[in-house]
Amino acid sequence: MAPPPSTAVSPIVSLLVRILTFVCLLISVIILITNTYTERSDYGDVKTKFTDFHAYRYLLGAIVIGLAYTLFQTALTIFLVSTGNRIGGDGMLQLDFYGDKVISYVLATGAAASFGMTQDFKRLVDRSDSGVDKFLSKADAATSLCLLGFLFAAISSIFSAFSLPKRA
Amino acid sequence: MAPPPSTAVSPIVSLLVRILTFVCLLISVIILITNTYTERSDYGDVKTKFTDFHAYRYLLGAIVIGLAYTLFQTALTIFLVSTGNRIGGDGMLQLDFYGDKVISYVLATGAAASFGMTQDFKRLVDRSDSGVDKFLSKADAATSLCLLGFLFAAISSIFSAFSLPKRA
Repeated sequence: MAPPPSTAVSPIVSLLVRILTFVCLLISVIILITNTYTERSDYGDVKTKFTDFHAYRYLLGAIVIGLAYTLFQTALTIFLVSTGNRIGGDGMLQLDFYGDKVISYVLATGAAASFGMTQDFKRLVDRSDSGVDKFLSKADAATSLCLLGFLFAAISSIFSAFSLPKRA
Repeated sequence: MAPPPSTAVSPIVSLLVRILTFVCLLISVIILITNTYTERSDYGDVKTKFTDFHAYRYLLGAIVIGLAYTLFQTALTIFLVSTGNRIGGDGMLQLDFYGDKVISYVLATGAAASFGMTQDFKRLVDRSDSGVDKFLSKADAATSLCLLGFLFAAISSIFSAFSLPKRA
């Protein structure tokens, strides 16, 4: 199938990248929200959740926004692939361009904030405690998957820049 | 002056945004590297520098890379404005596009990593100590200026996407 007018990249490739973004972010959010650490003490159990950290809360926000946007774009791309028509025409290409750009920045900052906090936090806590170590490793796994999702989102952003209607 | 061929945005505007990026990053790096905190104790002075934190070191790296790239692009844009000729032709437009994109992500992640760490770190330390508070406030100022530099870099990145030679 020849690509439709004013699209530089095949919609199939574009769809594949969107799906990869979505899968990475979905696994990331599952790991993140199921990550808890319970410390037993004489005074009762002390439970640590990802929501106890600002950086992980921001990461969650970034991933949820990323998931919603990617789902929306995936649906539009499936429509484009199956019918050959683009909903919204050239105006939508502008929206894709700005949307992809903003979402890729949101995901990049989410992953960076989380990594930045975790790296310095690791030096402050007792890593020999296997519970703490597991908590931080799971947080790192969620962050890494968000970073991978960001890389796919950045590729989508490059594609949508190529598809921009020419100015000047 | 009419913009030269295959440039959607006036080189004067483009130059202005580059200079604003450069100024923000320059002030940011000066604040960051001069930020120290000395705690006097009975056992001698304990000096805390920004290099003691992974996140601030990453921020410094991001700013230095951003400064070098922005200086290079500013020089090229001054040449374009003064002579009307673009060094490297259309191939350079591709390089601008990818370069601006990568640098804007580098600056975004630098600022995010630093903010992410500082926000959670603030809850762990004694904020009533004016020295600690000043150290963290200066770190926040450097990070905010990097964030502002990122916003200008993101605008440059949008401009360079508009200037891309049309494919397809």
